[in-house]
This record gives sequence, structure tokens and C-alpha cells, in this order.
Amino acid sequence: MTGPTPYVLSESEVLSRLRSKRGETGYRAMFSSWLGGIITDPALMQIPLDDHLVHRGHGVFDTCTLSDGRLYRLGVHMDRLLHSASLARIEHPWSKEELIQMVADTAGKADIRDGAVRYWLSVGPGGFSPSPQECPEACFYCVIFDPIPLGGAHSDPLTDGISEATVRDTPMKPTLLATIKSNNYLLNVLTHMEAVDRGGTFGILVDDDGYVAESCVLNVVFVTENGTLRTPPFDGILFGTTVRRVMDLASTVLLEEGLVSSVVQSPILASEVSGDLVKEMFLCGGDTHLYPVISWDGTAVGDGQIGPVAERLTELLDGEAFGGAPGDPVDFIDVNYEH
Amino acid sequence: MTGPTPYVLSESEVLSRLRSKRGETGYRAMFSSWLGGIITDPALMQIPLDDHLVHRGHGVFDTCTLSDGRLYRLGVHMDRLLHSASLARIEHPWSKEELIQMVADTAGKADIRDGAVRYWLSVGPGGFSPSPQECPEACFYCVIFDPIPLGGAHSDPLTDGISEATVRDTPMKPTLLATIKSNNYLLNVLTHMEAVDRGGTFGILVDDDGYVAESCVLNVVFVTENGTLRTPPFDGILFGTTVRRVMDLASTVLLEEGLVSSVVQSPILASEVSGDLVKEMFLCGGDTHLYPVISWDGTAVGDGQIGPVAERLTELLDGEAFGGAPGDPVDFIDVNYEH
Repeated sequence: MTGPTPYVLSESEVLSRLRSKRGETGYRAMFSSWLGGIITDPALMQIPLDDHLVHRGHGVFDTCTLSDGRLYRLGVHMDRLLHSASLARIEHPWSKEELIQMVADTAGKADIRDGAVRYWLSVGPGGFSPSPQECPEACFYCVIFDPIPLGGAHSDPLTDGISEATVRDTPMKPTLLATIKSNNYLLNVLTHMEAVDRGGTFGILVDDDGYVAESCVLNVVFVTENGTLRTPPFDGILFGTTVRRVMDLASTVLLEEGLVSSVVQSPILASEVSGDLVKEMFLCGGDTHLYPVISWDGTAVGDGQIGPVAERLTELLDGEAFGGAPGDPVDFIDVNYEH
Repeated sequence: MTGPTPYVLSESEVLSRLRSKRGETGYRAMFSSWLGGIITDPALMQIPLDDHLVHRGHGVFDTCTLSDGRLYRLGVHMDRLLHSASLARIEHPWSKEELIQMVADTAGKADIRDGAVRYWLSVGPGGFSPSPQECPEACFYCVIFDPIPLGGAHSDPLTDGISEATVRDTPMKPTLLATIKSNNYLLNVLTHMEAVDRGGTFGILVDDDGYVAESCVLNVVFVTENGTLRTPPFDGILFGTTVRRVMDLASTVLLEEGLVSSVVQSPILASEVSGDLVKEMFLCGGDTHLYPVISWDGTAVGDGQIGPVAERLTELLDGEAFGGAPGDPVDFIDVNYEH
């Protein structure tokens, strides 16, 4: 790796190198409150090194889904962002409506009608100490991107389901850190990596008492043999937006259709899953992603097939987000592509 | 906060806005392996938004001190960086010597002979998922800056000492996260903020069993009434470089001078400090920063004065880093300002 001594780059060299590093990306638009505007050139989608988001993890984030020119469930995600910001003690000047508007404005310049959305609220740039007192201006950043891997196939986990593995070497986050959706995600990353090593996909965290907690960035849901849809309580794990929608849909549509008999949030022992108690198990997150788990630590879950509850919920989430079923109208924000 | 609808910025608008946001800063030089060069314009000191350091906390960092054109203890810090990177499972192509060279090259363009040094090793840019598999190129970033607050006075905590407070609402990190020096520092930040709220300065974390752990970004050291210099073992807390140097100096110079009778790493109960056991207490970090704690939760530590051990260690650390005492020659890397 030893090369020539690095020299001081001119502005034009910085720009040309930034461009040469970027092949095609799916990044369509980025808003930065620091700049007060939107960037559509992926090479320029950067944030200041001294932003405490970068070097102190003092920032929170959330997501949503751009679907046919509408932002699906942005309000619910924004509520969580504001809750995370409050727990992380990030002072900022924005109302929920203003934050939503910034996301919608960014999407309006993104030149795609379907895509993924990420946004961060940070204490902002100001120095390299741990104290936010040196940060005069909180920052909001938002990116709209096409999440489809370039040149890659659109994998459909519903076709095959996934295998999972219990994560044993990566610890759970302390409750406060698990509750705040921040960029302090190293343990989530290591959870995922360990899961893959063990033949799993996203990983299942089990607490010291043997109860199922969560996956790396997903909530865990079970359907028991008596038809109960059951998911762990939110203490000590992420307050998932998708799992909440799953519970809503289960306790209305699925109950009516007879696919589930009840919906409860209660602790569930990992050891219960290996018995006959559980018919279905799945992970969910990202608004529309539902991953049926057909084996866990090498043992089939239920009959080792994708079950009817996972199948129907996927249909409902997809229908709601991507059309077909209109869904609750308050759950959509229209993007204005005109201005 | 509602303003005009943000519009798409041209490249020149991005650059002019980046410049207009920056008043005078102390940032003198930044190296980015992503760019393969050094930047001296603070406005351009940015990193890609999609770097997993930014949005997933998948990066580690370390520091050192630039002193009279020499990098003090860079080797020790670099060993820790590599250990952190290994625990964080960051694959990268660099040897310790190459990393040191990149820091030294950056310092060579920094136009100051005294300053602070920060560097980060990240899995790099590549997308917004938790998986580093989408990141083709690990990145190394380094910044050299003048840490003196602009226009502010150089405060000298040795003159007055500091007050500290036990942090009760912010949890400790799990051991793995405490051991890896990563940018997952939100709990450290909240520890500091809570400490200030409670009348302290950096905060003292005490574990569930009542043992002193660490401060927000500093290790805690005590001198007991029999002259023992005592600091908690490194399990579950940061493997501090400064506290290790403090132990070295104490077990050689201070022992010889009769200022301490022994040096031990063993657990210490917070309740022991409020009794007569402890004569001195101080926090240390950042190579040369030693903060005597003269009161803790409103109670005087020892006789409420700065003690002779803290005073002598400050003298030794300063002397070693900033001249006077030459220190161990292997602990310095000379910066080449010529090329």
C-alpha cells in the first residue's frame, strides 16, 4: 500500500477525485440543512467531518419508503425520529411538519417515484470534542435512493424463506441505546456479521434469561400453534414501525380472515420455538420487508415452510405501500415533482 | 424555520455555501484515503454520506498529540486502533507503519507544530445497508487541528481541580462496545451531558455492583491513604493509553520519589471514596490531560485540594510530551515538514 507521499489537493482535484470514485450509484437526491439545498450529484453527497454525527454518534435517523410518488408512513417514522432525538438530547429548531416537508422536497428532486429514504438529525458540525456545546447548528440530512443492487437480481425471500442463527458473541445494546434509533449501530452490524458466519441471515439476539429480543435491524414475530401472533415487548429493543403495522393488520384483517386468533406482545423464550409451540416465525422492518424464517440454528421452524400468515402479511404490506390496497390515507404524503 | 423550497444546488453553489458556513476553524489538514490526498481547506473536509462510519457506526478511531513537530505516542495509539479495528471486524489493507506514515504525512502539511490529531478507520462508503459487504474500500481519514478554543482562554484545571458527579441515568456500554474505540459514542456524550446537569464535569460511571468504571472519555485513578495508586481493571472500560502511561510513570518515577508506595489495577467501590480511604482522585486521557477531582457528588475528595501525585504526574506528562523531559525516544515520530 505504500505509494507516493500524499500531497495537498486543489479544489478541482478534490472534485475530480470525488467524481472518479463514483461509478453509477442509486443515490438520486440529498438534502443538507448545512447547505440549505439539495444535491443530485452523488459525488457531492458528503457531510462535514467535524459533524458530531460522524465522530461521536450524536445523531439519530429514520427511514421511509417512496412508493409511486408518495411517502409511505413518513409521519410514523418522523414521530420516532423526534422521540429518538429527544432521548439523544439533540436540540433542533424543526417541527414534525417541517421535517416532513424537507423529506418531501428532497424526494421531489429525486427523479424517481419508487425508492428508499433515509434521514438523519444531528447535533451538527463544530469540533471534535464529545460536547454538543461546540455545535451551534443542528443539521438535517436526507437521501433518496434506489435500493436495488445495480446489476443484481431482485431477490425475493418469500420464495425461499431464510435461515437464522442465534447470535452468541455479540452483546445486546443497553436499553437506552436500543430504544434510540441512532447511528450507533456497530453492535447491529456485528450481529448481522456473526449471524452470517453461523449460517444465518440477520441474526437472532436472545437475552440473558433466554428470551428472544430482536434481529440486527428487524423485529421478530411468531405465530404459535393456537394461532396467536406474538412478538416481544418493546422494552430493550427497537420500537419497530413495521412490526406495529403488522400487529395492526393482524388484529384487523387477519383476525377477520381467521388466519390468527389473537395478537399479543409478550416475552417468548427461544426454547419455546424449538418445541411444537411455534408454527411460523418471521422478521420484519423497512415498512415492507418481511422475511419468513424457515429454520433456526439448523432446526426447522414449524413445518419448515413459509406459512400463511407471513404470506398474507407480505401481500397486505406490499398492497398498502405499493398500490392495490389503498391503505390508510393519513399514512401517505404526496411528493410534489413539479416545482 | 419554514423557508423557500430548497432547490438543487450547482457545484459552485455547494462550494460557496460550504465556504460561507465556515468561519475560522482550527482544522489545518485532513487526509482522506478515499481521495488519496490531503485537504487544507476546512470547507472541503468532508466524508461521503454513504460511508458506513457515518450511518452505521462501523468505524474506529484514535488520537495522538502533535508536540513541537513530533507525534507523541502515536505507536501506542495505533496499536489500539488496530485492536479496535480487529474487534469491529474492519478489513483493511494497511500495516501499522503505513497508518503511522499517513498520519505523519498529514501532519507535515498542517502548518502547525503543536496540535491535536484524530484519525478514523472505516469500512468505507458503499450504500446504506448494515452490511460491510457493500463497501469495496476501507477508508482512513485523519485530521490535524488546533484544539485551543478560538478567542477562548486556555483553562488550566490543575489550578482549580474539577467537581464530579455520579451518572445515574445513562447506562454503561456493554463490554465489547466499551473495549472498541469506535464512533459509537452516544452514551459517552450523554454521560458527559448528565454529569454537567448534576454539577459534575465529565461524569463518573459506577457499575451495578457499585464499582467505579470510567468517565465519559477518561479513565479514573485514585491514590489511597497508604499511597497506592489504584485504577480499575480494563475489563468493560476503555483500554486507556494515558492511564497506562500514568501507571508506568507512577511505578518508576513516583515510586522512586516516594510519592506513591505501589501501583495496582483493582476494582474500587465508589463507597470507598467517600470514606477516608482516598486521598486523591483524578481523571486522565488525551495523552496529557489530567483532571484532579476535588469533589464528588458534593463531597470533598481527600482534603479537597489538588494532591501531590496529580501535580507531579501532570508535570511529568507535560514534560514528556511538550519538552523538557525528553521521554522515551520510541514514543515520538518526527514529522517531515519539508516535502
